[in-house]
Amino acid sequence: MILEVALLDVRANENEAFEAAFQQAQVYISRQKGYLNHRLQRGMENANRYVLLVEWETLEDHTIGFRESEDYQHWKRLLHHFYDPFPVVEHFESVNADTND
Amino acid sequence: MILEVALLDVRANENEAFEAAFQQAQVYISRQKGYLNHRLQRGMENANRYVLLVEWETLEDHTIGFRESEDYQHWKRLLHHFYDPFPVVEHFESVNADTND
Repeated sequence: MILEVALLDVRANENEAFEAAFQQAQVYISRQKGYLNHRLQRGMENANRYVLLVEWETLEDHTIGFRESEDYQHWKRLLHHFYDPFPVVEHFESVNADTND
Repeated sequence: MILEVALLDVRANENEAFEAAFQQAQVYISRQKGYLNHRLQRGMENANRYVLLVEWETLEDHTIGFRESEDYQHWKRLLHHFYDPFPVVEHFESVNADTND
């Protein structure tokens, strides 16, 4: 299991529009091969910041499967214009069984 | 439910020692009031980077309850010397029911 972590900085005063767009966009990620689950949460120290966590079966399910899909074009069109700066996305793997369920 | 997110940059060549120390340290966080669960995962793009996610019932369970506890002193002694730079810790709350289970 691979965890994708993205810290998303959304332009000022666009929170509501971003959250509405994300509601629409999540269908595109959720139907990908290897997609396991996702969550989006809003920053308490900075209300324009969100964290997106996505669990994938493999790294390539995200970096190749999703990013090269047509669904990614929809995702991108709905969401990317909200970000400033454009987010760095990183992937994390298990350290050991104890700390990962 | 509050999600604590910390991106941890561990000094070069100290991964094994850090992971071993974390195994010991996790007992101190896990027994706090309001602690729900945690996970530590290792970076795939940067093997010296980890993400620590902790779920708390409330923000104060972390920022007051844990940070002002004696257990935090143990946690700190075990872990803080591994970090360079010292991590920024942020908290995130639910956006809506759909995206949080």
